Amino acid sequence: MTQKRIAILGAGPSGLAQLRAFEAARAAGVKDLPEIVCYEKQNDIGGMWNYTWRTGLDRNGEPVHGSMYRYLWSNGPKECLEFADYSFDEHFGRPIPSYPPREVLKDYIMGRIDKRAIFNYIRFECPARWVTFDDETKKFTVTVMNHKKGEQEVEEFDYVVVATGHFSTPNMPYYEGLEQFPGRVLHAHDFRDALEFADQDVLLVGGSFSAEDIGTQCHKYGAKSVTISYRSEPLGFEWPEGIEERPLLTRLDGNTAYFKDGSSKQFDAVIMCTGYQFHFPFLPDELRLQTNNCLYPDNLYKGVFFQSNPQLIYLGMQDQYFTFNMFDAQAWYVRDVILGRIQLPSAPERAADIKAWRDRQDALSSPNECIDFQAQYIRDLMQPTDYPDFPIEKQAELLKQWLLDKKENIMTFRDKSYRSTITGTMAARLPKPWLEIKDDSLEGFMSLKFVEVEETADV
Amino acid sequence: MTQKRIAILGAGPSGLAQLRAFEAARAAGVKDLPEIVCYEKQNDIGGMWNYTWRTGLDRNGEPVHGSMYRYLWSNGPKECLEFADYSFDEHFGRPIPSYPPREVLKDYIMGRIDKRAIFNYIRFECPARWVTFDDETKKFTVTVMNHKKGEQEVEEFDYVVVATGHFSTPNMPYYEGLEQFPGRVLHAHDFRDALEFADQDVLLVGGSFSAEDIGTQCHKYGAKSVTISYRSEPLGFEWPEGIEERPLLTRLDGNTAYFKDGSSKQFDAVIMCTGYQFHFPFLPDELRLQTNNCLYPDNLYKGVFFQSNPQLIYLGMQDQYFTFNMFDAQAWYVRDVILGRIQLPSAPERAADIKAWRDRQDALSSPNECIDFQAQYIRDLMQPTDYPDFPIEKQAELLKQWLLDKKENIMTFRDKSYRSTITGTMAARLPKPWLEIKDDSLEGFMSLKFVEVEETADV
Repeated sequence: MTQKRIAILGAGPSGLAQLRAFEAARAAGVKDLPEIVCYEKQNDIGGMWNYTWRTGLDRNGEPVHGSMYRYLWSNGPKECLEFADYSFDEHFGRPIPSYPPREVLKDYIMGRIDKRAIFNYIRFECPARWVTFDDETKKFTVTVMNHKKGEQEVEEFDYVVVATGHFSTPNMPYYEGLEQFPGRVLHAHDFRDALEFADQDVLLVGGSFSAEDIGTQCHKYGAKSVTISYRSEPLGFEWPEGIEERPLLTRLDGNTAYFKDGSSKQFDAVIMCTGYQFHFPFLPDELRLQTNNCLYPDNLYKGVFFQSNPQLIYLGMQDQYFTFNMFDAQAWYVRDVILGRIQLPSAPERAADIKAWRDRQDALSSPNECIDFQAQYIRDLMQPTDYPDFPIEKQAELLKQWLLDKKENIMTFRDKSYRSTITGTMAARLPKPWLEIKDDSLEGFMSLKFVEVEETADV
Repeated sequence: MTQKRIAILGAGPSGLAQLRAFEAARAAGVKDLPEIVCYEKQNDIGGMWNYTWRTGLDRNGEPVHGSMYRYLWSNGPKECLEFADYSFDEHFGRPIPSYPPREVLKDYIMGRIDKRAIFNYIRFECPARWVTFDDETKKFTVTVMNHKKGEQEVEEFDYVVVATGHFSTPNMPYYEGLEQFPGRVLHAHDFRDALEFADQDVLLVGGSFSAEDIGTQCHKYGAKSVTISYRSEPLGFEWPEGIEERPLLTRLDGNTAYFKDGSSKQFDAVIMCTGYQFHFPFLPDELRLQTNNCLYPDNLYKGVFFQSNPQLIYLGMQDQYFTFNMFDAQAWYVRDVILGRIQLPSAPERAADIKAWRDRQDALSSPNECIDFQAQYIRDLMQPTDYPDFPIEKQAELLKQWLLDKKENIMTFRDKSYRSTITGTMAARLPKPWLEIKDDSLEGFMSLKFVEVEETADV
């Protein structure tokens, strides 16, 4: 039997998890592993965690993947994404605070990657162009554009793992008057630097994480005022002077925005925090996942195997309370199916399993229930694999505490510290409030004098 | 014999010219015309001439096509793009000035389109996803994403006409320090409104039309200073106070830019006027045109038929002194080949013809020679078709005059008037200098009191 071949599309957190899963098997002495090629659009690993100054299209004319901005700090405690097999203690050698800036968190996420081994699999600057599946040979043909060579590559694979993320393609609705608004209009995806909005009156349209984080950041870096316009419900935090919420934007006239409650206000810039689309321009309809952003997308068995063709695998397509360790759990499970350690059930059995999970999803009625649901999903994936056991349920409790801490004070929750569920280490505290620390560099952050938290402190 | 089928990709000036060419044949009584489907990414006809407030990706997550900005006025005399079969007199009913704003020019370009007839061919919000050619059946399979329906369409065609333009995908080089520049960095493609740069020190990187036009526009709308950084040669105009040229940017450090002559200056924003890429993500390599921006791209017989597969046609891929009437000439010629009125010569003969034109191109040594070359190319295309004869050589002379007028004064050349080569009508003058007219709307422009130019005036 010839060696199986796997194409992984994307070398971000999900794609890297898949590569690590196979590397772990290799390290454990497994022979005859499949041949893997990982195609990555960017020129480095890291996916969304790579900050780029570019917006719109990248240097190869491909849509920019990254939605990260300067001065972005984790908006959840790092203890909720700690790896079972690579702790913060191991990486940093000392306790650091629970909410690090992007560069610091990326340094950790990438810290466990054996780059020499992993880079062998990856072809950089190779966005996928088109994927087909042959029903007779049961093989995929994958065409990618190799921008480094200036030519396309066409190869056959037994499995395709789509790990291209779903927070890259802006969802950008139209509001009357936007085309005549005499200032800047951009999507959160293209937001890069809060300093560009210093002394401005900024309107953020949207009521979720992007609005919350970009709003507080614009405030931190000197915006004159921040107005968040929500569709259904306000975020409801106790905002400081300078940030307010208003109901839905109805229209703009010149630089004046009108809201559903009849109020109006003049703005210098509009930032659309209106979410992202699932966008797979390289997939024909019969292979294309079609879903909204939810905890259990339809047609994915175990949240990963495409129902009508389980040789096609989607990683990380869920809405995410958990992130990196969820991708790990998915990647280990996928690996074990490909290696034949786990047998996929029949199509009807898979459909029944999907339906059972989706029925449970439909019954969820609170953020806390959602967190527990995703923890149970991860537990379900981990169980049959050799992924090192870790207390996902304890991380779920931290997430619930995080929600309370944000509710208590949206401007100071990043000053809190949490205890590692992996090592038991208590996170350090920032030497001064997050609101006053404006340098987000790895160097700048790591040179801060962190305050050790007494072992008896509350978590 | 079954009816031939043609796919036209794009309903901008080139694609519309192709549709009009076939409509003209229909109007002339030709029966058994091929079946045509025109796939358009946007939700309207007009291509580049549609202004959009969007940047980056459009509402369907597709790269935004438009590179137009507010307050854009034609940068060449309208008399150089006047249609042989639809004059400015016919459209506007009275003389208007030679340099109208975008909306006015678009109104003219679209004015001759019989929308009821043309719209029947067009499927909007349908970007091309992938095109293949079957060597046995000699047919193309075209897959497009129909965003209106949320599903893909797959159809077979005998001919594919690529009319997707080549001024949409930014060419965006990296300069050291861009990633830390504490202000806005954007490509000319995403420039929308000069007012966003009022009171700012703006750096434009690039020494061609975009830099020239965006630079003068930022100046017109209140930028504190405009600095244009050129690679090889300065634009060399006599700039007004507030605009200057410097040699190539070497690096940025914070908000300070350093130039090749050792000078430096602080900036608030960087606009990369660094041109565009030929980008056909929907085409496999064997069908993909690979060229730089030039007057006679290689591998295109008569500038349009793809050499290795002349069922594949590219419109408007030339660098452009002439625009709309060049697209017309191409479209009429293509139509006549498809209708069998013109026989394509053998592959070696086509190759020899391409080589002859490209040899001539290589010998061109001045802008005036380039203008004549393109006029001769258009003449060569028109000759064997029934496209109404028009004095392309006279339009070439106007283009040469335009170059002189710009050289004389880059800030006032738009105040000049030219005589129509089609009707002999002398263009009106603006009632006050272009520099003082800030409203670019169709209504605003047409309500200006144009000044009729004496018939004895110079042109």
